[in-house]
Amino acid sequence: MRAVVLEGTDLHLRELPVPEPGPGQVLAKTLACGICGSDLHLRRHSDEVRKLALDLGADPAALAGGIVMGHEFVAEVAAVGPGANAKPGDRVCSMPFLLQGATPLPIGASPLVAGAFADYLLLTDMLLLKVPDGMPTEAAALTEPFGIAVHAVAKARLEPGDAALVVGCGPIGLAVAAVLRARGVEAVVALDLVEGRLALATQMGATGTAKGAAEGFAALAAAAPGKPVVAFDCTGARGVLGLLIRHAPQNGRIVVAGIAPGEDSILPMLAISKEVAIQFVVYYTPAEFAEALELLASDKLPWRPLLTGTVDLEGLPAMFDELAGRSAHAKVLVMPHGPGAAGPA
Amino acid sequence: MRAVVLEGTDLHLRELPVPEPGPGQVLAKTLACGICGSDLHLRRHSDEVRKLALDLGADPAALAGGIVMGHEFVAEVAAVGPGANAKPGDRVCSMPFLLQGATPLPIGASPLVAGAFADYLLLTDMLLLKVPDGMPTEAAALTEPFGIAVHAVAKARLEPGDAALVVGCGPIGLAVAAVLRARGVEAVVALDLVEGRLALATQMGATGTAKGAAEGFAALAAAAPGKPVVAFDCTGARGVLGLLIRHAPQNGRIVVAGIAPGEDSILPMLAISKEVAIQFVVYYTPAEFAEALELLASDKLPWRPLLTGTVDLEGLPAMFDELAGRSAHAKVLVMPHGPGAAGPA
Repeated sequence: MRAVVLEGTDLHLRELPVPEPGPGQVLAKTLACGICGSDLHLRRHSDEVRKLALDLGADPAALAGGIVMGHEFVAEVAAVGPGANAKPGDRVCSMPFLLQGATPLPIGASPLVAGAFADYLLLTDMLLLKVPDGMPTEAAALTEPFGIAVHAVAKARLEPGDAALVVGCGPIGLAVAAVLRARGVEAVVALDLVEGRLALATQMGATGTAKGAAEGFAALAAAAPGKPVVAFDCTGARGVLGLLIRHAPQNGRIVVAGIAPGEDSILPMLAISKEVAIQFVVYYTPAEFAEALELLASDKLPWRPLLTGTVDLEGLPAMFDELAGRSAHAKVLVMPHGPGAAGPA
Repeated sequence: MRAVVLEGTDLHLRELPVPEPGPGQVLAKTLACGICGSDLHLRRHSDEVRKLALDLGADPAALAGGIVMGHEFVAEVAAVGPGANAKPGDRVCSMPFLLQGATPLPIGASPLVAGAFADYLLLTDMLLLKVPDGMPTEAAALTEPFGIAVHAVAKARLEPGDAALVVGCGPIGLAVAAVLRARGVEAVVALDLVEGRLALATQMGATGTAKGAAEGFAALAAAAPGKPVVAFDCTGARGVLGLLIRHAPQNGRIVVAGIAPGEDSILPMLAISKEVAIQFVVYYTPAEFAEALELLASDKLPWRPLLTGTVDLEGLPAMFDELAGRSAHAKVLVMPHGPGAAGPA
């Protein structure tokens, strides 16, 4: 089978053996898989990520070898291992973890478990969620990033009347904006430096836009005077947390959903003087992941504006280069077998 | 009257005019006033604090001149201004703010409003809390730091079963430990580098002690296996937040109650991977301040171990030097008129 392999910071299309599903596993044919900011990050900072993993006690042997990324997938069950209940032909998505014995290993994030930038991948039967009939494959491929958004919004402990600033209008920020609106938040100001992304944010439900932190908080204060404010840092960029602390109002809450590399610097005295609260978040619970799939299957939130492109495995390395620049793209889906193989659209 | 004035980083005993109470103000004779870590900090970092205040938009003219510090006071009403209801002879404490017109100005923190390291100071009539008859003046002098502790504990949003790590066993840390125990927290591990302070922490109610962050979290996990953990950073030291993030368990909460100068560095990826929550806190609500006075007047928490010394105005500069080193002192009270003037003990 074909797979795109990250070797150092290079991506190569390689021919790999089709994997064999073990007990409780299934072999699944990739229908669609989103390119995630963390994939771009992993490629760009693979050395730094490796070093941090080693610092935290990872086994050096386990980090040798190339990585097949891709963890935002929809796939079609092709074969089942011993004890698996899925049926060949089932269209499924799942949280990106492969149970090997009792140990959940992240899919597409290390050399240990290959992801979905390939014709096929292994999945865990008990984690599979069946994609509802009639639901576009493209929508189901957004389950993972929307799971992140559902979780980030849950961790913000919203109260009625809260107003939100969404900082960074990449796919996660756009999904957070949409989920906030689906949760009934009336004032959602989206902040980005790129005009086209602000336009997407508006299509995804943002009620206002801004290009800087001071401007964003001011727009929010104007739209929802005196209301509690929660800012979602979806940038993954160094320095943004410090900027949000500087401009946040009294009792401002900050949810950090973007994964930034390395050390970052803040001014505690300023955070203290305003009693800022910071909640760092990652992933989702199984219930939140399933809820994201349900939200996307329903008509409760817009998702089409988020999808700005598709690519096949051959085109993937060039698309990574494009996305690493200041691209107008939001979410790009990799469809190894073409849109035709992806079922209803 | 005599007052100790901070001029640059020097403290001098000066003769100043007794101030005149304006409308809604009272003139009060200082019975006792605690020396606070923020006083030591303000003295040591007065240039840096001034620069930060200017950066944040303070009026340069308002920052000229010496500072009479002292904001943890009990005082006796000596004279009342127009419209004030207090009676001369009333023993009172209050939140350290002076209302000048509608503007609350912090007492003892800037050149604008003199504090209680002096024979007399001005207070705001409507903020006065009467010290209950029979309550030791020394206990009432702890209302302000215990107000900080009551507030920090409230902001931690404790749930039954939560376990707590108190980092830094200066007066605030010791007060936090005592309030946590008064709130029913069963596992409270105190962390400090100084043996004598850990002994005080135990007297204040801590159920365990440790000398490092890893050891502290491990002790807590042993004392309260699987329970949610909240750490209170009461050190005001740079680098501690990063250390707590590094060693905190999954979903660990950190309440930052110590005021640290300058920039501090954290590792967001680590905070994200554990979904750490950070709540910065400062001050208290009026209700929390009053609650601290009630707690201290009751027998609900120990306070005597916290008091390790008294000093008069003459001895104050030397005591500042002593406290700036690695002192075994916890709370030292300044009693300008001697213990005899302080009422019941």
